[in-house]
Amino acid sequence: MRVGIEGVGTSHFGRQPGVDLVDLAFAAVDEAFRAAGGPRSVDAVWVGTVFGPAGVAQRVLRAMGLTGMPVLTVENACASGTTAFAEACEAVRSGRYGRVLALGIERMGDGAITPEPTDPEGRSGLALPALYAMAAARWLHEGRVTPEQLAAVSVKNHAHALHNPRAQYAGRYTVEEVQASRMIADPLTLLQCCPTSDGAAAAIVGPAAPGQVTVRSVALRSGAPWNHRSPHVWGHDVVRDTAVAAFAAAGVGPEDVDVAEVHDAFTIGEIVTTEALGLAGPGEGGKAAAAGRTALGGEQPVNPSGGLLSRGHPLGATGLAQLAEIVWQLRGEAGARQVDGARIGLVETMGGGVSVLDGNACVVAVLEAP
Amino acid sequence: MRVGIEGVGTSHFGRQPGVDLVDLAFAAVDEAFRAAGGPRSVDAVWVGTVFGPAGVAQRVLRAMGLTGMPVLTVENACASGTTAFAEACEAVRSGRYGRVLALGIERMGDGAITPEPTDPEGRSGLALPALYAMAAARWLHEGRVTPEQLAAVSVKNHAHALHNPRAQYAGRYTVEEVQASRMIADPLTLLQCCPTSDGAAAAIVGPAAPGQVTVRSVALRSGAPWNHRSPHVWGHDVVRDTAVAAFAAAGVGPEDVDVAEVHDAFTIGEIVTTEALGLAGPGEGGKAAAAGRTALGGEQPVNPSGGLLSRGHPLGATGLAQLAEIVWQLRGEAGARQVDGARIGLVETMGGGVSVLDGNACVVAVLEAP
Repeated sequence: MRVGIEGVGTSHFGRQPGVDLVDLAFAAVDEAFRAAGGPRSVDAVWVGTVFGPAGVAQRVLRAMGLTGMPVLTVENACASGTTAFAEACEAVRSGRYGRVLALGIERMGDGAITPEPTDPEGRSGLALPALYAMAAARWLHEGRVTPEQLAAVSVKNHAHALHNPRAQYAGRYTVEEVQASRMIADPLTLLQCCPTSDGAAAAIVGPAAPGQVTVRSVALRSGAPWNHRSPHVWGHDVVRDTAVAAFAAAGVGPEDVDVAEVHDAFTIGEIVTTEALGLAGPGEGGKAAAAGRTALGGEQPVNPSGGLLSRGHPLGATGLAQLAEIVWQLRGEAGARQVDGARIGLVETMGGGVSVLDGNACVVAVLEAP
Repeated sequence: MRVGIEGVGTSHFGRQPGVDLVDLAFAAVDEAFRAAGGPRSVDAVWVGTVFGPAGVAQRVLRAMGLTGMPVLTVENACASGTTAFAEACEAVRSGRYGRVLALGIERMGDGAITPEPTDPEGRSGLALPALYAMAAARWLHEGRVTPEQLAAVSVKNHAHALHNPRAQYAGRYTVEEVQASRMIADPLTLLQCCPTSDGAAAAIVGPAAPGQVTVRSVALRSGAPWNHRSPHVWGHDVVRDTAVAAFAAAGVGPEDVDVAEVHDAFTIGEIVTTEALGLAGPGEGGKAAAAGRTALGGEQPVNPSGGLLSRGHPLGATGLAQLAEIVWQLRGEAGARQVDGARIGLVETMGGGVSVLDGNACVVAVLEAP
C-alpha cells in the first residue's frame, strides 16, 4: 500500500514557558486535520517524545477529543518524531490501520540535556555539544572543512528562518559574527548550536490518494556504538547506511533530491550529514554551504525552514517539523522560502541516546510531490 | 505470516537496589537466547519501559552486544512490555523483520509512582491505589464481590508464587490475614496491592516453526477516558473490547483458555479482568477466586506465576513476564506450578497513564501450545 500524507501541522517553536504541551500539540494536530480535510478522527496514533512524562500522549490526545484508538508512544532520541512517522507509515503500508496520526511533542524547559547518573560518557563530559565539537575538530584537522564553512551553515540557516514565522531564531549574520559569538564547545560557537525549544508537529497519513504528497520510502536504522578507529566521525555511518536503504527503496538517488531537511543540531552536523546522504561528495559538504549551493536559490537547498539551528529543536517534535516543511515545499505552500518546482524531498533525522556512544538511530524519508 | 515464540526469559523480580538495569536485561535476554537456540542476533528490537531514562534501550543492548539493528522504545504505561511484544509480533506477521526481540525493563526504585505536576487527577489524590479502591468499593456496594472474595485473590496468588523462585513475595496467608494487613486505600489492604519492583523480561519471536508456542492473536487497544456514568468500573470496557478482538482473531473463546496471566495490580483488578475477559460471568469473578476455580488445580487457573501481586510489577517488564509464564506453561516447563495439559494460554495487561483518566491501553494475546 502506497502511503500518502493527508496533512501536516506544527505549533510555534521556541521557549514557551507559559504554554502547556496540550496547547502545543493542539496547534499541530488542528492544522494537520484542517489541511487533511475529512473527519477529525484516526485509526491509531504514534507519539514521539523523549522527555515527555509517562502518560503524556493520552493526556494531550484526550484534550483534543482523540480517544479510544490505539496509542503508542515511541522514544528514539532526536529521531523520535521521525520514528513515529516511520511507524505510522509502516502501519498504513502493511494494511494494519487506515488513517494514522504521527505526533511529535517536547518541552525542553529551561535547561540543556543533563546526563542521567548511570551514563558514563555523560559523566565524563561527553555531552552532545562536546561530541559534535570533536567531530568538527577532526574534520578541521583533516582539512575536510574550514572554520568559515562551518559558520556558513549557521549564516545560511538563520537567513532561511527569516522567512519562517514559526522559527525560534532568525537573523542576517556574517561568518565573522557567527565565529565571534560565545564559544560553547570549541570550535562550535553559540550560533552554531541549536537552541532549547518547546514545540509540537504532526502528520496524518493514509493510503495514497491523488493530489497528495506521497512517501516513496522511509528507512529506519540504528547504528552500532561509535568505533573510534572508524575513518568517519560519529553519526556518519548510520546516516549513510539509512540513506542508501531509503534511496534504494525509493528508486531515486541523492542527485534527484530537490530540497532536504536534515539534522543540523550543530553546524558540523549538517556538513557531515549532507556528505553521508550523498548530497555532497566527500570533503564537499562545507564548500557547498559556503558557495550557496545548499541555500535557498541554490542548486539543492538544505534546511529551508532554518533547520534545528534556527527553527529550534524540541527533540520529539523535530522530525515531524522537518517532514511538515518538506510537505509544504512539495505542495508549493512554503511561501517566501519556496524551492521552485521541488518534486523530490528528503527528511533525515539522527538521534543518539543521552549516552550517545551506546548507539544511535536514523530515519530517512523520501517524499514526492503530488 | 504466523508468529512463533522462539524463547523467553526473565530476571529475578524484586527490589534490587544494587543491580543495574543492564544486568536485569542481560538475565532476561540471555535466558531467551538460550531457550531459542541459534545465533545471538535479531533483526530488530522493541523495548518497553515507562520510567527508563532516554537512551536506556541502546545502553542495555550495547552491554550485551546487540547493536546495529533498529531499536524502538515504546511506552504504554503498565502495558508497555506487552506493547513491545505486540509490535514485535506485528513486525514478523507483516514480513517487515524476520527475528525480533521484545524486551521489557523497569527499575521502580524506592518509591511509588508520583503524579507529575501537570496531572490534575494525580494532584487531587486519584493515584492508582485510590482508583482501584473506588472500583472495589463500587462492586462491594453493588454486591458484585465480597471483601472475602477480594482477599481470596491475594491468598491464591501469594500461594502460587511459593512455586515461583523468581517472585518478589510469596506466602501462605489466610483471608483473615490478608484483610488484617495494613490498609492502603480502603478497602484494599497491603497484601491486596502489588509491590514496588525492579525486573526485566524478554521474548524472541519469528516466523512460526514446528515445536514452538505460536501466537494465535495479539490485540492492542486504547480506551476512552473513563465515563463515570458507565455501568462499569475503570478498565473494564477496554479489557472487554480488546479481548473480544483477540478471541475473534484467534478463533477461540474464553471457554477454551486453559491458563491465563492477567493484570492483578490490585485484587479487584483480577476480578474485574476475569469478568471483562469472559473467563467468569458478571458477578462471578470473585466467586471463582474464592471457590478455587482460578487456582492451580482449578478449572481455569489465573496467574499461576503469582501475578503482579506476588511476582512483582516492574511496569515495563510485567507484560513480558506474563508472556514468559504462559510460554513456559504451554511448553510444560512450569515446574511445580504447571497447569496439566495446557493448550491455549492468554496474556492480558492493562495500563493507564500516570493520569489514569486520560485513557488507558490494553493488550490481549492468545497463545497455543506446540
